[in-house]
Amino acid sequence: MRNHLPPISNTHRKRTQQLDVPIRTLLGTGPSNIPARVLQALGTQVVGAQDKVFLNVLREVQELLRYVWQTDNACTFAFAGNEQSAPEAAIATILKPGDVLVVGHSGHMSVRIERIAEAYGITVQRIARTDSDVLQLDDIRTALETYRPALVALVHGDLSTGALQPLSGIGEVCHEHGALLMVDTIGSLGAVPVYVDAWGIDICYSTAEKCLSAVPGLSLITLNDRALERISQQSNSPLPAHALQVDRLYRLWTSDSQDDELLPINLLYALRESLRMVADEGLVECWQRHRNNAELLWFGIEDLAVECPVAIEHRLPSLTVVYFSNGVDGKAMKRHLLTHYNIEVAAAAHPDQGTTWRIGLMGYNSRAENVTLFLKALEDALRILG
Amino acid sequence: MRNHLPPISNTHRKRTQQLDVPIRTLLGTGPSNIPARVLQALGTQVVGAQDKVFLNVLREVQELLRYVWQTDNACTFAFAGNEQSAPEAAIATILKPGDVLVVGHSGHMSVRIERIAEAYGITVQRIARTDSDVLQLDDIRTALETYRPALVALVHGDLSTGALQPLSGIGEVCHEHGALLMVDTIGSLGAVPVYVDAWGIDICYSTAEKCLSAVPGLSLITLNDRALERISQQSNSPLPAHALQVDRLYRLWTSDSQDDELLPINLLYALRESLRMVADEGLVECWQRHRNNAELLWFGIEDLAVECPVAIEHRLPSLTVVYFSNGVDGKAMKRHLLTHYNIEVAAAAHPDQGTTWRIGLMGYNSRAENVTLFLKALEDALRILG
Repeated sequence: MRNHLPPISNTHRKRTQQLDVPIRTLLGTGPSNIPARVLQALGTQVVGAQDKVFLNVLREVQELLRYVWQTDNACTFAFAGNEQSAPEAAIATILKPGDVLVVGHSGHMSVRIERIAEAYGITVQRIARTDSDVLQLDDIRTALETYRPALVALVHGDLSTGALQPLSGIGEVCHEHGALLMVDTIGSLGAVPVYVDAWGIDICYSTAEKCLSAVPGLSLITLNDRALERISQQSNSPLPAHALQVDRLYRLWTSDSQDDELLPINLLYALRESLRMVADEGLVECWQRHRNNAELLWFGIEDLAVECPVAIEHRLPSLTVVYFSNGVDGKAMKRHLLTHYNIEVAAAAHPDQGTTWRIGLMGYNSRAENVTLFLKALEDALRILG
Repeated sequence: MRNHLPPISNTHRKRTQQLDVPIRTLLGTGPSNIPARVLQALGTQVVGAQDKVFLNVLREVQELLRYVWQTDNACTFAFAGNEQSAPEAAIATILKPGDVLVVGHSGHMSVRIERIAEAYGITVQRIARTDSDVLQLDDIRTALETYRPALVALVHGDLSTGALQPLSGIGEVCHEHGALLMVDTIGSLGAVPVYVDAWGIDICYSTAEKCLSAVPGLSLITLNDRALERISQQSNSPLPAHALQVDRLYRLWTSDSQDDELLPINLLYALRESLRMVADEGLVECWQRHRNNAELLWFGIEDLAVECPVAIEHRLPSLTVVYFSNGVDGKAMKRHLLTHYNIEVAAAAHPDQGTTWRIGLMGYNSRAENVTLFLKALEDALRILG
């Protein structure tokens, strides 16, 4: 068979060892550590994408996503992607060039939404707020009256600032002004109350690997009939982003034929298991656990005289931003925690001056023993390097 | 904390059982069964995306992808996606509206490329061929002279037809005419010879879950300097598809900062392991194994008087299309194999008349015992239901 074939090059036939990774306690901005039962589900052998066993997995994932999002939306599903994929899919499918999008500025994650929208020729209007504060209902109302947007986009819990944006009442005001409301719950879903239906959120998205402790590589999204109606009106002038069109992606969850595109089977096994864990614990209990462990962290940090810039009533339990006072080498302390305690925390979103940390207590990692270990390690680092 | 919050709905708090899936022998169009050592790597605990341990995994994956693609291309990587994502990323990043794309018609997978390109306003020119035959070098040359395309797209092994497109010499002719060559190796990578550099392929892509036996959810892509040069020329007029821009996706493999977007860590652990298996076996030996087991299947099918429409010199070893004669109920036989033997084969690409099967022997599943079991099961089904 090898007639007329070029010779084989072994230049890149790299010799490698069996995978061996250290066990870190991941207290950054995600991923969080994955529970053993989720890893076990992940490692389950594949079946065909049209196998009735797998179709049942899909139905269960949809139901449990509806539970954690507190929604009855039929169009609730997951697809292969990262933090960027769901907001792009929503913007590319729902808006058309020239439409106005109002973005509530919350930090790095809201800037991502702006960048995507601008790439699609959408007119972006930013409602500014300081990094530590949150938008008020009146800010939204004024923006609706001033800019007449087709869509308002808010980040519920921005992982760059650690502030939690209240959402109650905003959907109603948006709808009164003919706008849809889209909410980014990447940093919040599973950690704090999210009520998609009761809060009138038309498009809500998240990812698997933050507070749900599932496996990186999945975007999660839910859309209500109002959003789907808007999509169907757009059908005559589709934007490109063919692979990211919400209706095409959702088709894979509703049709028997997945011949064209395969869903990420094992990641969905794992997501199902992580959602089962939330359902077993109970959503309220899960929120309360995140709150309790965050308070444990906040009070402990206060004792160490480390500053937490966000007012306590606006703090995100899943991610706490702390500032070190002048002279403390945050970068060296970060290395100390990794080297001596196998603890990973996150630096500031860009630029990293070494004076800011972001401490995540997400999903499975929101446990008292992690907080205790972290505080002891931080105390140690401050004593040696502070 | 629950003041002013709506009541919790337990409507979708579905009671579920621990995941329990049957062990199928997947002889369809993918996924193929995943080897135990790949599943074990998949289920390894995550580390942070900037952990030096993970950055080393990335470097090893890149090296081993270069080996299986036989390329020195620096820009060789993987990202969260499905069969649709890599061709869309390439088309959206390299072409601009009005550019001409010549697509070699090979079946269903080439139609996907056409659909994507049309969504982006690209002018598509199809070079037709019959489903069982392959394009000749002269067909390409004539198309290059007639249409003056910016890009020629070919499918190496179309999983809808089971024919293998020869590629030697095509890159040279494309370059003489100022066109780039893009090749889809979703159905072929790991199963048959692919020489990205020696064959002058400028953009080549695949997915993880076919003949590499890795885990669904990853798109694989490699681009040479000629393709990257074209991308850099496009930088002033970027198409949208923000999440699918090749240069943005590749940045995650080269930059220390992955704060914006996370790579699918566990899927990359698994891909690394499946690539290690190819490197352990040797690429030539891997191709030869696919060929040997395919011939075992082809000769066995001949003995059962089942027709194979593709001429033997153009057959894809990883996917064999067979036709049943009139009166044979292919759908009932397919159910018989699943029910009695836990064997899954694929029906025809749309529309499924029940008279066509597609039999995959991909990666780990290309083993003599699978062929023997399949032939015995088919003989049994033909006797009972034929």
